[in-house]
Amino acid sequence: MKYAEPILRLIDALTRLPGVGNKTASRLALYILNAKRSYVEEFAEALLEVKDKVRLCSECMSFSESDLCKVCSDHSRHPETVCVVSDFRDMAAIEASGSYRGRYHILHGLLAPLKGVGPDDIKLGELMNRVNNSNIEEIIIATSFDSEGESTAAYLGDMLKDSSVKITRIASGVPVGSFIEYMDKETLSRALDGRKEI
Amino acid sequence: MKYAEPILRLIDALTRLPGVGNKTASRLALYILNAKRSYVEEFAEALLEVKDKVRLCSECMSFSESDLCKVCSDHSRHPETVCVVSDFRDMAAIEASGSYRGRYHILHGLLAPLKGVGPDDIKLGELMNRVNNSNIEEIIIATSFDSEGESTAAYLGDMLKDSSVKITRIASGVPVGSFIEYMDKETLSRALDGRKEI
Repeated sequence: MKYAEPILRLIDALTRLPGVGNKTASRLALYILNAKRSYVEEFAEALLEVKDKVRLCSECMSFSESDLCKVCSDHSRHPETVCVVSDFRDMAAIEASGSYRGRYHILHGLLAPLKGVGPDDIKLGELMNRVNNSNIEEIIIATSFDSEGESTAAYLGDMLKDSSVKITRIASGVPVGSFIEYMDKETLSRALDGRKEI
Repeated sequence: MKYAEPILRLIDALTRLPGVGNKTASRLALYILNAKRSYVEEFAEALLEVKDKVRLCSECMSFSESDLCKVCSDHSRHPETVCVVSDFRDMAAIEASGSYRGRYHILHGLLAPLKGVGPDDIKLGELMNRVNNSNIEEIIIATSFDSEGESTAAYLGDMLKDSSVKITRIASGVPVGSFIEYMDKETLSRALDGRKEI
């Protein structure tokens, strides 16, 4: 018993989304078949619109509807400090903290040789261009503290070591609100290494 | 930190899919933003195509690209036996068993008063029309054995009791390959009730 051709094509498109297997795709396709036409039209339009209207900010590679994103076109944001993050969500999290007034650079991924993601697959060249062509004084590396985030940070440090820019890495340690007794060994070791005089 | 408007619209459309929350929708939207344009176009086209080309078979309410579905237009399938199922997947499962040569009727749901699904919300009227206007001899009720499936079966029995059609219900009992010791009480009780002479 096979689905009609158009249903199979929809299932196929849905299966290519991350985390969506064949069963989920069938379930979603049946939902779409039974959904209101107006919804399905809105959905299809939103898909195309996102490709038509959203591009990468020419400075920081964030998603933007114009050539420069809101952060890069905001003159109250310090242009000499650039915080390097893996993706838009990390940038959003740092923005939500309200504790950063500089600019960003979105890598759109992290180095992961085993997954086939090399230096040319993420926005490292664009960062190098910014370093060479503008007056950046500090680059804050805010990638995650797992193996991909760490190796990307190490690669960045190496890539920028001949520039005059100061390279920093956000601190690793015990999160606010956490109990020492529940922390893993690695985190405690880092928290000790990174201790500061008070 | 907000996403650009077109991204928010896409997230909104994705959130309306069953089982997709805000976090999953953001993740899918970012995937789509980074995906190849050709894929996104195919996806949007598949969405619209499924609405344009797929309709319900005028006989059995199954999904079909033509007025009559493949089963209903297959003259080797007995038209006097109709198996009533909740949805297309149940029909596909019975077809896959290879043990049925009659026709189907898809209800597109089960009665669920607590969820606001009443007799007018599923394809019961269409079944009644078929019973009145064609020579159906037997209706096999193949809804699931949970409360919704059972109450729908009871409703169907009641709805059709004045017709001359024979109404049957598929058997409930111990599945093939299962061990008696692991069966729940209800299933064993039904299996005993439904015992047959050998």
